[in-house]
Amino acid sequence: MTNTYTETYTIPYYDCDSEGLLKIPMLIKMMIRTSGNQSDSLGVGAELLKEFNVNWIITQHDLKISELPRTSDVVMVTTQAESYNKYFCYRRFWLHDSNKNELAFMESTFALMDVTTRKVHAVPDEVILPFQSEKIKRIKRGEKIPEMNETTIKRSFDVSFWDIDDNHHVNNATYPAWMMDSLGYDFLISHVPTRIIVKFNKEIRYGEAVESVVEEIKEQETIHQIKSNETLCAEGLIQWKKR
Amino acid sequence: MTNTYTETYTIPYYDCDSEGLLKIPMLIKMMIRTSGNQSDSLGVGAELLKEFNVNWIITQHDLKISELPRTSDVVMVTTQAESYNKYFCYRRFWLHDSNKNELAFMESTFALMDVTTRKVHAVPDEVILPFQSEKIKRIKRGEKIPEMNETTIKRSFDVSFWDIDDNHHVNNATYPAWMMDSLGYDFLISHVPTRIIVKFNKEIRYGEAVESVVEEIKEQETIHQIKSNETLCAEGLIQWKKR
Repeated sequence: MTNTYTETYTIPYYDCDSEGLLKIPMLIKMMIRTSGNQSDSLGVGAELLKEFNVNWIITQHDLKISELPRTSDVVMVTTQAESYNKYFCYRRFWLHDSNKNELAFMESTFALMDVTTRKVHAVPDEVILPFQSEKIKRIKRGEKIPEMNETTIKRSFDVSFWDIDDNHHVNNATYPAWMMDSLGYDFLISHVPTRIIVKFNKEIRYGEAVESVVEEIKEQETIHQIKSNETLCAEGLIQWKKR
Repeated sequence: MTNTYTETYTIPYYDCDSEGLLKIPMLIKMMIRTSGNQSDSLGVGAELLKEFNVNWIITQHDLKISELPRTSDVVMVTTQAESYNKYFCYRRFWLHDSNKNELAFMESTFALMDVTTRKVHAVPDEVILPFQSEKIKRIKRGEKIPEMNETTIKRSFDVSFWDIDDNHHVNNATYPAWMMDSLGYDFLISHVPTRIIVKFNKEIRYGEAVESVVEEIKEQETIHQIKSNETLCAEGLIQWKKR
């Protein structure tokens, strides 16, 4: 069992939707923050990454939600660098309420991007060894997202200044925000996701025009594509339940 | 001197822009959160407001910034309910760094909206007296925003699910986000606001198409309009300096 790292947060009202439930993009950001803070605590933060001219990017999230916390709730976020291979690092995140009930669990795949070439860079030992995570050979591909047959809904977005993160591209948490947003207020206010898979294929930069395409494949299941200039930049699958 | 109320926060990386400075909409949200928490601490929070079928809305912000905090900085937000008249409550906010240097100061005007009729409701004594703020007769109108002559830039936005707050309308902090966003990445990454005035005229609901219109009136000064269906919903003035 490798190191885990836990932080406690109080959910601010402004990270919640109009009904007081934590917004999904904020849940993902809160989780990712914990991994950044774990890196800092182990002395493998931004400064070391700069020496290699790299920064962390995310290639996949698989988030399972049993219950979303509400405004002012105190929650604990735990993360663990589970395993890694030459190019990919596999990380787990848990969200617990103050009584230690599990509210959500996410498995994410991280990689290092060369900041100049924008290409994936092999993971240096100096960056990964302090996490004491398991070195593996295989590449975990995660669940396959069904192919899209019929587009039922499309919505266009222009990248906003506020979407751009320190990698100078659209933050990973914006993609599920765009995916969900195309389903509209009435649906989102009456449903809540139980599972969200997002696979990232290509970064999106400022100035790009983005299309969020949706197909409902089952009663409570939607598949999603985020496209820029007809290029598939991310795909997703979301399972829903009634609020 | 009426009661003040202070809270300490650590700035999360995800509330900062690509260069690590706190995003303006997040600064405003952090400040407003403090006033909500002060209300809760005095027993005049959401439950009491529900008895009157009202909720707080904001009609004006005047924010002066000397320096923006960065990722992981520890800051203190202080608020004070300064004075009020029949319909409006005037509130002050301060942002300090951990050495008690003042980083920002905001004066905001609050009113109560009847949640059913969406009209302004007179401020009940039960809601305002616990703040021990001064009762005044006059209405503070704040600085006048120059009229717009020439539109240099226009950008369109669709209201997002994520913009809607517990008043079921676009959150006040989204308006300066739209105003600033229409100036584009290159400008925003090389400039930082020193003063932001926003005056709110009409609420915006989900499904509306919004236009953010800008005119540069001086070297480092822009004026802004947020319109929906040709109706002026908010106007703003922003003063800038080079980063």
